[in-house]
Amino acid sequence: MSSVAQPINHQIRLAARPVGLPKATDWVHTREPLAEPDEGGVQVQTLALSLDPAMRGWMNEGKSYIAPVGLGEVMRAGGVGRVSASRNDRFQVGDMVSGGLGVQEYASFSADTLKTSGLAKIDLRLGSLTQWLNVLGMPGMTGYFGLLDIGQPQPGETLVVSGAAGAVGQTVGQLAKIKGCKVVGIAGGAAKCDWVVKELGFDACIDYKAGPDAVREGLKAHCPDGVDIYFDNVGGEILDTVLTRIKRKARIIVCGAISQYNNTTAVQGPKNYLSLLVNRARMEGMVVFDYAGRYPQAIAEMAGYLKEGRMHSREDVVQGLDQFPAALLKLFNGENFGKLVLQLAKA
Amino acid sequence: MSSVAQPINHQIRLAARPVGLPKATDWVHTREPLAEPDEGGVQVQTLALSLDPAMRGWMNEGKSYIAPVGLGEVMRAGGVGRVSASRNDRFQVGDMVSGGLGVQEYASFSADTLKTSGLAKIDLRLGSLTQWLNVLGMPGMTGYFGLLDIGQPQPGETLVVSGAAGAVGQTVGQLAKIKGCKVVGIAGGAAKCDWVVKELGFDACIDYKAGPDAVREGLKAHCPDGVDIYFDNVGGEILDTVLTRIKRKARIIVCGAISQYNNTTAVQGPKNYLSLLVNRARMEGMVVFDYAGRYPQAIAEMAGYLKEGRMHSREDVVQGLDQFPAALLKLFNGENFGKLVLQLAKA
Repeated sequence: MSSVAQPINHQIRLAARPVGLPKATDWVHTREPLAEPDEGGVQVQTLALSLDPAMRGWMNEGKSYIAPVGLGEVMRAGGVGRVSASRNDRFQVGDMVSGGLGVQEYASFSADTLKTSGLAKIDLRLGSLTQWLNVLGMPGMTGYFGLLDIGQPQPGETLVVSGAAGAVGQTVGQLAKIKGCKVVGIAGGAAKCDWVVKELGFDACIDYKAGPDAVREGLKAHCPDGVDIYFDNVGGEILDTVLTRIKRKARIIVCGAISQYNNTTAVQGPKNYLSLLVNRARMEGMVVFDYAGRYPQAIAEMAGYLKEGRMHSREDVVQGLDQFPAALLKLFNGENFGKLVLQLAKA
Repeated sequence: MSSVAQPINHQIRLAARPVGLPKATDWVHTREPLAEPDEGGVQVQTLALSLDPAMRGWMNEGKSYIAPVGLGEVMRAGGVGRVSASRNDRFQVGDMVSGGLGVQEYASFSADTLKTSGLAKIDLRLGSLTQWLNVLGMPGMTGYFGLLDIGQPQPGETLVVSGAAGAVGQTVGQLAKIKGCKVVGIAGGAAKCDWVVKELGFDACIDYKAGPDAVREGLKAHCPDGVDIYFDNVGGEILDTVLTRIKRKARIIVCGAISQYNNTTAVQGPKNYLSLLVNRARMEGMVVFDYAGRYPQAIAEMAGYLKEGRMHSREDVVQGLDQFPAALLKLFNGENFGKLVLQLAKA
């Protein structure tokens, strides 16, 4: 009998399907012994997790682009970590990796679950650990493929992006600038707007919290000829207002609708959607996972922009697994400033 | 002084901007002497007019894809007629023509207004007078380009079209069948549904008036694998229900929203629009006038289908200029069965 205590894995599991904003009682904190990987398996110590608006959708019952998290299951989360044990030739102890780690200190993959885990080595010379959850991670890939494949920006066009200081928004705006667009952000508060313009180089940013007509007036002022591309992360009233300002053949990328995710009533549909007809415009949805085969090419391009200083990033880092339930709420009240990350351990 | 009475032109003009459904007092009936055309001008006797849901939009103030009809102006309408006087080499007295004739017995074009009138000769060997307002006219062109250019149907795909027995719907469904799709219509009442299936060859037709869950249940029954293309003429609840049944990469053509045109409150936005995201689908608007340069090619193709008996049409013909205000209302209560036409004179 060994005198070494068996290591324990701390986890946060979904306890109940939330109604409206997730509450403390929708989660349960669990501890379980950490087993060594089986033949072909890998164990990863979680260093940092990506906290995303999409998580709210995964907590709901019902059909979506991905199965819901089951009650009692470890909450789904993308993250970055270090291989802490391996019986698989592709991964060595100490390798830095990203993938679906879940809200837990250690993620264990069998030979089978590894195949669908998306676990991949990451190179910290291309970007920092938190940048691998941001520009080089899911939000960056979402912005990259949503903008380029769905939005198809042309030099000289005007792009508007909501959630401009958020993870996807910061990538979309900077990438659109690189592609020659005029870029106008929409964000909550003067500090975020200042950062987006001064640090990220957007042409303008509209503070939607500045007043009831701030978005309408801001679009008139900054997009006098209308909007060619709208990258929508928020839905609701802002989507409706942008719809009144789109140009002919405009493209609206439906990436998310964070304003609607915690509704206890029906989603607010865009009452100005007939602007699509008048303007021969389109509104199109996208899911980043469809582009997995092209991530390496996109990561290489984005890493190049980071290295050249043409792209910047900002992460809002919260410390500690136990902070997960509270940290997640920052997304929905707009409190996070930059990509929201939960750090569990130092790299 | 001639003893021949000067001919009189009877007209219906927009007297007020309607709130909700157009009322009798929103129109004024006028009579004015008919002048001979100036050098380069043409005069056309109206034989039949196209009555379209889009007319309701033209009566509203405000920016759209086309300028509103001004108060006091003859109501805008497309029609077919016979050249009754001409001082233009392109048109001879007796020529059959189609174009923007307006709700009046005679339309007069100067050399200038002729340029933008879209007045064009029609060939009654290709289709009857009323078919030139239907399959070979604006509704047919709308269906043709909306389906083929925006919808991009592939053989084996499932198409749903609302307003299936209407002018655009009958063309869309038959054309989609010719292109190899499975076609499910949505129409109001058993008679229309029967006609759509038995005469036009749709695979099925859902009677949306059959009960509150008729559309939902009908889509489940007839589109068990989901909907690839939805050609939307109606908006409102039916659009929302179809959105719950779309497949990956579905295309929704926003052609109209007749359920919303007489709203006195805001348009009902599609609350299920996030289905576009989940399904990587798109919703796109179209305006037929953009395709004017390609009408001849489309007319030739459609006339071929008519001749081969692969396409059928049905027009609901109301007699007499004075009936215009009442006839228009048939569109909005779904009373018309087939393309609604107002006949003013025999060919």
